[in-house]
Amino acid sequence: MATSSPPAVSPAPAAVDNSALKEDAYQRIKWNGWGAKHAVMKVDEQDHTVVRHVNGKPIRGLIPFLHKEINGGDGPLPRLEATPGLSLEEALAKLPASVVNDAFIAQVQKGLQPSQIRLDGESRLTHLFGKNYRDLWRLRKGFFERAPDAVVLPQSHDDCVKLVEAAHKHNVVIIPFGGGTNVTGCVEPNPFDPARRMIVSIDMRRMTRMLSIDKESRVATFEVGVMGPDLDEKLGRHGFMFGHDPDSYIYSTLGGWIAARGSGAMSNKYGDIEQMVLSMKIVTPTGVIETPLTSRPCGVDLNGMFIGSEGIFGIITEAVVKVEPIPPVKHYEGYLFPSFEAGYSAFYKCTAKGIHPTCMRLYDEDDTRMSFAMKWDEPAYKTALSKAIKTYLTNVKGFKIEKMCLVILGFEGSRAEVNHQRDLTTPVFRQFDGFCVGQSAGAGWQEKKYDLPYIRDFALAHAHWADVFETSVLYAEAIPCWRAVKEAVRNVWKQHGKRGWIGCHAAHQYRFGCCLYFTFASAQKDDRDLEVFLKLKTAATEAILKHRGNLSHHHGIGFEHVPWIERYFGTPTLDLLLKFKKDVDPKNILNPGKLLPVAANAGESKAALTARRKEVQMFDKMGLPKGSKAPQAKL
Amino acid sequence: MATSSPPAVSPAPAAVDNSALKEDAYQRIKWNGWGAKHAVMKVDEQDHTVVRHVNGKPIRGLIPFLHKEINGGDGPLPRLEATPGLSLEEALAKLPASVVNDAFIAQVQKGLQPSQIRLDGESRLTHLFGKNYRDLWRLRKGFFERAPDAVVLPQSHDDCVKLVEAAHKHNVVIIPFGGGTNVTGCVEPNPFDPARRMIVSIDMRRMTRMLSIDKESRVATFEVGVMGPDLDEKLGRHGFMFGHDPDSYIYSTLGGWIAARGSGAMSNKYGDIEQMVLSMKIVTPTGVIETPLTSRPCGVDLNGMFIGSEGIFGIITEAVVKVEPIPPVKHYEGYLFPSFEAGYSAFYKCTAKGIHPTCMRLYDEDDTRMSFAMKWDEPAYKTALSKAIKTYLTNVKGFKIEKMCLVILGFEGSRAEVNHQRDLTTPVFRQFDGFCVGQSAGAGWQEKKYDLPYIRDFALAHAHWADVFETSVLYAEAIPCWRAVKEAVRNVWKQHGKRGWIGCHAAHQYRFGCCLYFTFASAQKDDRDLEVFLKLKTAATEAILKHRGNLSHHHGIGFEHVPWIERYFGTPTLDLLLKFKKDVDPKNILNPGKLLPVAANAGESKAALTARRKEVQMFDKMGLPKGSKAPQAKL
Repeated sequence: MATSSPPAVSPAPAAVDNSALKEDAYQRIKWNGWGAKHAVMKVDEQDHTVVRHVNGKPIRGLIPFLHKEINGGDGPLPRLEATPGLSLEEALAKLPASVVNDAFIAQVQKGLQPSQIRLDGESRLTHLFGKNYRDLWRLRKGFFERAPDAVVLPQSHDDCVKLVEAAHKHNVVIIPFGGGTNVTGCVEPNPFDPARRMIVSIDMRRMTRMLSIDKESRVATFEVGVMGPDLDEKLGRHGFMFGHDPDSYIYSTLGGWIAARGSGAMSNKYGDIEQMVLSMKIVTPTGVIETPLTSRPCGVDLNGMFIGSEGIFGIITEAVVKVEPIPPVKHYEGYLFPSFEAGYSAFYKCTAKGIHPTCMRLYDEDDTRMSFAMKWDEPAYKTALSKAIKTYLTNVKGFKIEKMCLVILGFEGSRAEVNHQRDLTTPVFRQFDGFCVGQSAGAGWQEKKYDLPYIRDFALAHAHWADVFETSVLYAEAIPCWRAVKEAVRNVWKQHGKRGWIGCHAAHQYRFGCCLYFTFASAQKDDRDLEVFLKLKTAATEAILKHRGNLSHHHGIGFEHVPWIERYFGTPTLDLLLKFKKDVDPKNILNPGKLLPVAANAGESKAALTARRKEVQMFDKMGLPKGSKAPQAKL
Repeated sequence: MATSSPPAVSPAPAAVDNSALKEDAYQRIKWNGWGAKHAVMKVDEQDHTVVRHVNGKPIRGLIPFLHKEINGGDGPLPRLEATPGLSLEEALAKLPASVVNDAFIAQVQKGLQPSQIRLDGESRLTHLFGKNYRDLWRLRKGFFERAPDAVVLPQSHDDCVKLVEAAHKHNVVIIPFGGGTNVTGCVEPNPFDPARRMIVSIDMRRMTRMLSIDKESRVATFEVGVMGPDLDEKLGRHGFMFGHDPDSYIYSTLGGWIAARGSGAMSNKYGDIEQMVLSMKIVTPTGVIETPLTSRPCGVDLNGMFIGSEGIFGIITEAVVKVEPIPPVKHYEGYLFPSFEAGYSAFYKCTAKGIHPTCMRLYDEDDTRMSFAMKWDEPAYKTALSKAIKTYLTNVKGFKIEKMCLVILGFEGSRAEVNHQRDLTTPVFRQFDGFCVGQSAGAGWQEKKYDLPYIRDFALAHAHWADVFETSVLYAEAIPCWRAVKEAVRNVWKQHGKRGWIGCHAAHQYRFGCCLYFTFASAQKDDRDLEVFLKLKTAATEAILKHRGNLSHHHGIGFEHVPWIERYFGTPTLDLLLKFKKDVDPKNILNPGKLLPVAANAGESKAALTARRKEVQMFDKMGLPKGSKAPQAKL
C-alpha cells in the first residue's frame, strides 16, 4: 500500500522541464498587493467620488461608504488622501542582509538547476509575507525584521526530498510557500531564531502536473503547487472540476489549501479540504510520509495531522483528491431579509431540516451595506428594478434599509436536483420574511466574490485599512458570538477614541455549526494604528473563544493565533503536538514560530517557558514601531 | 477551549453509584458466544432439517444451505453433528494462573470501590477474547495462552484517570474493553510480553451517562461505555437518535465504535463514526487529551489519531457526538438484479449521479442465496407471492435463480425527502434490470440484520465455522477486488482438498469507493482447520491489498492485520506512529500487540527487528495447536 497513484487511466505526463519558463508565478503578481501586476482599483480621474474597478467599471458607493460608514462623515464627499507605499527599489534597499549557509547552497546546487535557486532581492521580497493588512502595511512601509535568504523552486517531489535532506543536514530553516495568499502570517520568516539560521522559502508553483486521473473512482493525483484555475482547467479536459472556491482561488495552490485547512464557498456540496483529499505525500526531515489511498481511513488517520499543519510537519508535495463532475446547472440567487436574526433563522431552519444548497451565505446588515457599496454601474433597467424592489420592501413590507440582510443561495447539479433543492429552500426562506431578489444578485456575487482584496489594497493606498478574520461556532453560539465579537471590536475603537466599521457573514452549513466571517476597517492615520489593530484582533479572539468558536475556520493559525493555541488545545494536547513535531522534525527546521509555540528546553520550568513564549511570540511584535505598547495577548 | 461540554441544556445528572448493580453487562451475556444468555439457535427437536431461530421461528433453508452450498452435498439432508464446547467449569479450569501486581491492586483499591475490581475466573474468562470465529473456537476448546489477570469497572472519567496513573506507575498492561464484540483480536491479552506484566481489562460498561445535550446545535456528551440501545433510548427522550447501526449495535459501545473506527448500515446518511464524533476525552499515561469541540477542526486534527486507535494511545472516556432528529419516515425495500455486475452498475450509477439513499446494500449471488436460506416461515400469502415473483423473474425476465442478486435500499427522512430519493433511485435501478420486490424484503432485512452471529454460533456448535472480513476499495477496483478475493479464498480450499462457501455484499456509497463485506464458511473437522482458516485470511488479505483495498473498513486492525500494517502504511509512517505511541505511552502499557507491531529496540537492525516482529506477531500463532504450520503472513 502506501502508494498514492490510482490506476493511471491517463498516464502521467513526462516530467516537464520548467527551467525554460520565462517567468515564475511570483514574478507575474504584485510584490506589495493583491493579484496581477497593474490590476489596481483607482479613484476615477475625472470624478473624485467614483472608484474604478480593476475591470474599469465605475463604483459609486465605495467612497461614500468609507466616508459615512467608516468615518461617520456627513455632507459632501472629501477627496481621498493618497498614501502611497515604498517603491520596489526603496523596499529592496530596506531588505535585511542575507544569511547564507554555503554548504546548504552547494548541496542544493548539485541536485537542482541554477534557475531553481534564487538569491536576489526581488525573489526574497516577494516571499517575505502573506497578504493580510499587516503584511501589506509593512511592505508599504519597509518594516522588515527578517526576510527569506533564498527562494528555491522545486519541480518535483524528488526535488523536495533533496531540499529537505539538505536543509536537515545543514540546519537550514525552510518555509513551504504556495500562492502566498495566507492572511495569518504562515509564510513569514520568524526572526526569533537564536541560531540565526539561513531561511529558505520553498516556492511550490512549478509543481503543477496532474500525475494521473481515475475517472471511474473520480480521483486524481496532482502536484500541489497547482493553482486554482490551472487545477480546474486540467480536470475540465476530462469533464471534471475540483469544487474548492476560496476567495484566494485564482492565486492560491492546492498545497496551500491543504496546509492551511482551507474551505471554499461551495463547501456544503463539495466539502471542506479535509473531505476532498484522500492521500498525500509529505516530505519530512525523518522520511517521506505517504498517507494511504483508500475510500475510507483504516486504523488511525494521519491525514488530519498534516492537513492544516502549515508546513511545520513537512512539505506536502503530491495529493490524491476527489474530483467532481461539472454540474450542468448552476443557479445562484439572492434574498433579502428584514434582519440578521430573521436571515439566520432561515439559515438555521434549513440546516435543521437537512436542506443544504451548494452555497448559503448570510450577510449581516453591515456586510449587506458594504456589499451594496461595492456595486458597479448597471444598465438603467436593473438600477430601476433595484430601486423598485427597495421601495416595495420598505413601503409595503416594512423593511428598514439599514437593517436589511442579503442571503446568497447557490444550487449546483442536475436541473432536477437544483429544482428540488430550491423547492425545499423557498418555503423556509419565505417563512422568515425572505424576499427573493433573483438571479442578478447571485450573478453579482459571483462576479465580485474575489474582489475584497483589491478593495483592501485601495483602502491601504488611501489612508484606510481593512482586514478579515473568521471562526466557526456551534449553532447555539452563532448569534451570541456574532453579537459579542462586533461589540468587542467596537469597544476597542471606542476606548481609543477611534471609529471603524465591522460586518459579518455566516456560511458553511455544518450539521452542528457554521462559520462566522468578519470584515472590519478603519482609517489609517499613522504607524501606531497597528497597535489598535492588534488590540482589536485580541479582543475579537477573546470574544470568539468565550463563545467556544475555533481560532480559525479556514484562514489557518500562522503566527497570528499562536498566543491562544495552548488555551485552544489544552496543555496536554499542545505538549503532544510538540512531541510529534520533534518526532518528524528534530532540528525544528520546518517553518518555526507558526501554529505551535516554542517547545520547552530541557529542565525548563513552566513559568520560564511561558515567559519565553511571550518574549518570542510574533503576534504582538511584528510590524509594530519601536517602543509600541503591545496588546495583552495571553499565552 | 479544550472543553467538550456543550451548553448543558439538560444539566448533567448527578454521578450514579453503580456499585449496587446486581449484574454488570458482561454477566448478562454469553461467555462463549454471541448475545444474551440462553439466546441460542437450535435444531428443531422434531425435525432435524429445521433450525429454530432464537425467536423460536422455524428456518427451513439453513441446513440445506450448509449441506449443499458449503459441503456440496446432494440427496437427503443428514442429521447435523453436534460439536459442543467446554462447559463453563471446564473452561475456568483451563485459565492460566493470574499475574497480580500487588502494588497496583493496592493503589486501585484505594481509589475505587470493591465491586469495581474483579479478580475471579469468570470475569477473566469473559474478557479474554472478542467474538470472531477463532475467539469462540478457542473458548469452546480451552486454548488460552494468556488471560486478563483482573477486570476493573470504572464509573467515571476520573476513575479512568486513577486507573491509568496506577497502571503507568506500576507498569501494568491495560486493555480498554467496550462491548467485547470486536472480531479482529483487539481486546485479547498479548502473551508476548517479555516482562510478563499484569494485564487488566478495563470494562467501560458502567460509564453510560449522557452528560449534556445541546438541542440547538444537536450535539450531546456521553460517557463512552453506553451501548447502542441505551444511547438511542437516552437521545430518544429528547427526540433524537444517533444513527449508528453496526451489526453489533445491541451489544457494542460508543467507545468501541470510536476505538475500532466503526461504521453502520445507515452511514450514507448519518456518517461513519469519524463524522459523528466532534470531540473526545482520552486518558493517556502522559495526560488527558481533550480534542477541541468545534463545528470544524482548526489547525491540525488529533481526532483521527484516536479514532481507530483501539486503545493503544489511551482510554477514550467521554465523547461529544452529533445527534440526529428521529426521521418521521423509514422506507426500506428490496430489489432483485439478474447478476452482481448488473446490481453493481446500478449501485455505481447512483453514486455517480449523487444519489445516496440512507442505505444501499448489494448482495452478490452467493450472499443472496444465504440471505434467502436464513428466512423463517412466513404467512402462506407471502410465500406464494415470493414464488410468483421468482417464477416471473425466471420465466419472463430470464433471471437465473442462482445468479440473482438482492439489493436492500433504505430511505429515511421526511415523506417528501424519501419520495424524492426514491424517485431518483428507481429509474437507475430499472435501467439495469432491477426488479422491486417491495417493502417486505426491506422489513425482512431489518428483522434479521443482527442475526449473523447467532448463525455463526450455530455453525460452530454443529461442526462448521463461519466468519467475516471486509475492506473498502476505490470504485475502479470494486469488481476486480470482489472477484480476486473470492477466487483467492476458493483456491486455498482447493489446494487443501476442502470446500467452503464465500459470499459478499457491497455497501457504503462513498464518493470514490465502497465497502466489500465478505462472509465465508466451511466444515470444521479438527483443530487443524484453523491453519487453513489462517491461510484463507492471508490469501484474502493479499488479494485485497493487491487491489489497493484497505486492511479493514470497519472491523479495526486488532492483531489480525498487524502482519500487513507496515505494507499498508509504509515504513516511515509506521515509524512515525511508533514514535507517537512512545510519546503518549512511554512504557507501552496500553493494549500492546494490537494495531502496531513492536517498536525497534535501541540499536536493533532492520533485519533483527523484522525477525523479532515475525516471532511475536499474534496473527499466525494464537489458537493453533502446537506444531502447526503457520501460514506465511508477511511482515
